[in-house]
Amino acid sequence: MKPAIPSGTRDFSPWDVAKRNYIFSVLKETFERYGYQPIETPAMENLETLTGKYGEEGDKLIFRILNSGEFFIDFLDEYINKKYFSNRSRPVSFKESFSNITLDALKKYLNTYNIVLDVKLLSSELTKFVSEKALRYDLTVPFARYVVQHQHEITFPFKRYQMQPVWRADRPQKGRYREFYQCDVDVIGSNSLLNEVELLQMVNEIFGELLPAINFSIKINNRKILKGFAELIGLKDRLEELTNILDKSEKTGVEKTVEELREKNLAGESNIAQVKQYIEKNLTASGSNEKIKYLQELFTGSPDGVQGLQEIDFVLKYAENLNIPVALDMVLARGLNYYTGVICEVKPVAVTLSSSICGGGRYDDLTGIFGLPGVSGVGVSFGIERIIDVMNELNLFNKLSLTVSSSKVLFVNFGPAEEKFCLPLVSTVRSAGINAELYPDHAKIKKQFEYADKKKIPYVAIVGSEEMQSGMITLKEMKTGEQKKMTVEQMIQELKNSL
Amino acid sequence: MKPAIPSGTRDFSPWDVAKRNYIFSVLKETFERYGYQPIETPAMENLETLTGKYGEEGDKLIFRILNSGEFFIDFLDEYINKKYFSNRSRPVSFKESFSNITLDALKKYLNTYNIVLDVKLLSSELTKFVSEKALRYDLTVPFARYVVQHQHEITFPFKRYQMQPVWRADRPQKGRYREFYQCDVDVIGSNSLLNEVELLQMVNEIFGELLPAINFSIKINNRKILKGFAELIGLKDRLEELTNILDKSEKTGVEKTVEELREKNLAGESNIAQVKQYIEKNLTASGSNEKIKYLQELFTGSPDGVQGLQEIDFVLKYAENLNIPVALDMVLARGLNYYTGVICEVKPVAVTLSSSICGGGRYDDLTGIFGLPGVSGVGVSFGIERIIDVMNELNLFNKLSLTVSSSKVLFVNFGPAEEKFCLPLVSTVRSAGINAELYPDHAKIKKQFEYADKKKIPYVAIVGSEEMQSGMITLKEMKTGEQKKMTVEQMIQELKNSL
Repeated sequence: MKPAIPSGTRDFSPWDVAKRNYIFSVLKETFERYGYQPIETPAMENLETLTGKYGEEGDKLIFRILNSGEFFIDFLDEYINKKYFSNRSRPVSFKESFSNITLDALKKYLNTYNIVLDVKLLSSELTKFVSEKALRYDLTVPFARYVVQHQHEITFPFKRYQMQPVWRADRPQKGRYREFYQCDVDVIGSNSLLNEVELLQMVNEIFGELLPAINFSIKINNRKILKGFAELIGLKDRLEELTNILDKSEKTGVEKTVEELREKNLAGESNIAQVKQYIEKNLTASGSNEKIKYLQELFTGSPDGVQGLQEIDFVLKYAENLNIPVALDMVLARGLNYYTGVICEVKPVAVTLSSSICGGGRYDDLTGIFGLPGVSGVGVSFGIERIIDVMNELNLFNKLSLTVSSSKVLFVNFGPAEEKFCLPLVSTVRSAGINAELYPDHAKIKKQFEYADKKKIPYVAIVGSEEMQSGMITLKEMKTGEQKKMTVEQMIQELKNSL
Repeated sequence: MKPAIPSGTRDFSPWDVAKRNYIFSVLKETFERYGYQPIETPAMENLETLTGKYGEEGDKLIFRILNSGEFFIDFLDEYINKKYFSNRSRPVSFKESFSNITLDALKKYLNTYNIVLDVKLLSSELTKFVSEKALRYDLTVPFARYVVQHQHEITFPFKRYQMQPVWRADRPQKGRYREFYQCDVDVIGSNSLLNEVELLQMVNEIFGELLPAINFSIKINNRKILKGFAELIGLKDRLEELTNILDKSEKTGVEKTVEELREKNLAGESNIAQVKQYIEKNLTASGSNEKIKYLQELFTGSPDGVQGLQEIDFVLKYAENLNIPVALDMVLARGLNYYTGVICEVKPVAVTLSSSICGGGRYDDLTGIFGLPGVSGVGVSFGIERIIDVMNELNLFNKLSLTVSSSKVLFVNFGPAEEKFCLPLVSTVRSAGINAELYPDHAKIKKQFEYADKKKIPYVAIVGSEEMQSGMITLKEMKTGEQKKMTVEQMIQELKNSL
């Protein structure tokens, strides 16, 4: 048997863990500096908590967990009972009535009770029956579930962060995994736009720490602006389709976008000029102020548009005061349907990856589905794996003095007497807070040095018969080959100085 | 819909997360001080990686993940094709041949091709078909899989630690969950007993930090001692049964243990005296040395016994030199079949919980099943949830100055002008490394103070029109009610001093 892991999943070796932990710690420290607190939810949720929240496509990508037991015969039995014997009692179940359970036995049983079994219906019922739990698909829905379930313990506005893996039965491809982490930070129970500003402040601080400023851009928009525009051009009922196409317009260009809108009957003689102008303005305007002026004129008759514009204006002004480089992107839509207000997105710049590395927005009624209506929330989510991809491409981990946790010193093991002598010494070194180890086997010295070299242990302590007599340790620096004799106290000082 | 989570799983609120993180950090720091490095493996493994490794009972407790798709009709079609058409071609599949897929249609199809379908066989095949992946059941088997898969990148001896959740379809009860963390630390690729000593040293250091010394005990034994004893009394082939009963003898007492051995035909006239003496010696001996003397006499003719005794003697002597309080427990067995050498267990003392909070041992050939034979490993596993239960009972978290990460200061929000004035001040405070937040809404002051109180934020900064004019901030300490006016620099100093 050749060992392997499921496609779309990954093992993380010590160096991978070090990179990931570094990013987690930057996020965690920033979140906490802004007063956000951590929560964690289970990997598995009840199926009904998740289904219906991510659209039809999303539902298909949820990993379901199989109920235990050899379930088919049991299911068939229960299914038949429920569907065909709900109004009459059955003297004996299918399972009990035949010692040899064949299709003929089943047929005979069904004939006895005059039942016509629909295999297609059975199939879809079976899928439901065999699974009642599923793996977390994102952190937002479990968070909404958490807020409702724990509403009486929570002080609102509730500022929480959550960094946990999610699972999606997506087709695996470069940069897309079936198991990956989401790092979410949300405020729930406050309508104030200050929350949007604060989130942007954190986003800017975090990426400012992780990436050079030229390598990321923060864009914002408002769902209400998109809604206002759709109303204006008579496409109120086709908002989703319109915004999906607009969202890509920066990439595809004005002409192709208009073409696609025409193909889908979203642009006709009456509104084509306005759509073109909207897209062009977004591409060519000198800055957010010019866009706002344009939208102010455009939206005179649209309450949604005006409201959206006011919100964006507030956020942009506050961001400017706080030196957060945020730009209005009038076509930015973000995919998720539950967003209702300001939305934002961070994209990497001047690297291979072009998809977003962070995004979020305001959702006005996410907890409503779980029975707690009228609670507004806003949050952003950071994509760890993509951030790592960008940092790898920019060679940033090497510029950080990031190291794999490793011993600072390896005590060579010459044999039984020496190892006995060394053990308390190693303990003393560790008590001083220095990572240290004694090679466990009486292996050839060459092999032990190779071990230190490969594990990037910078110092080797040599304690042979001579050192045992003198009580002095020979400390060798691996990089220079330099050797010095010293007491254990001197060694601790030397190792501390080199940290 | 009333929100809920699957039974046996838990949400962790900020205070729970703080407790758990504290224990994780003690473990992590100790592991790293001893030169162990972190790895992580995916939550889901291929089903064949896990099945057959945990015994029949264990296999039943593995959570399987459902393949996606409406699978029953597809499965039926494939099943029929594979089983009945492997030697002949079929002109049309069952799925294609009927627009209306009923059991009668299936029957007709089967009749056409002269097929008798066994529903029972179908049922067991179906279980296999619908699931190819499963959730991690422990960390040891994924670690063995990892070592074999990455053997060419690894420098042996490989010292790794791993702290991740595992899932078991066990019946939930107090202290037993369906999702829980394991924290494993192992050395693989070294036969040296120094590894056993080092692990015991870490175990002692970790519990010494987490618990008072009187509240835990470390016991060790050797599977070879148990094997030697079983051989000696003619029960070589019934080692597992024998050790399971011996393992409980401390609780059940000598008489009941002997009774149970008799009931299961494990003790007769020929060996009853020896078994009794063995159990009694374990209960009454004044210390490990007396037990060793007893075993030395007992094992003169048993190579396994002698070998096991030598190993235990080595470990005990080294442990004594290093002041690790370890006691030999001749009946300690540990459940897992893959252990072959020294085993150990930590139990809480003088608290409600009596089950182990840490355990492990040496396994001589765990990677063999994945194609890498002859690699010996040894490791221990820490049970986070049980450690927390014990610490809760002893009220230890309150004695630690453990706090939920929370803001140090809340800026009260009096209105639009004040919030604008405050935002850069909050930024300045945060830049000094102090967790701080501005209340996002223009809520009543009483509500804002209640928020600070409930969130345990120790200071409130009051900036009204007066403070805006003077440039001085009023800082109020929540506990004492004391108020002082100061500049933002003075405030930062004050808050830092109070940390």
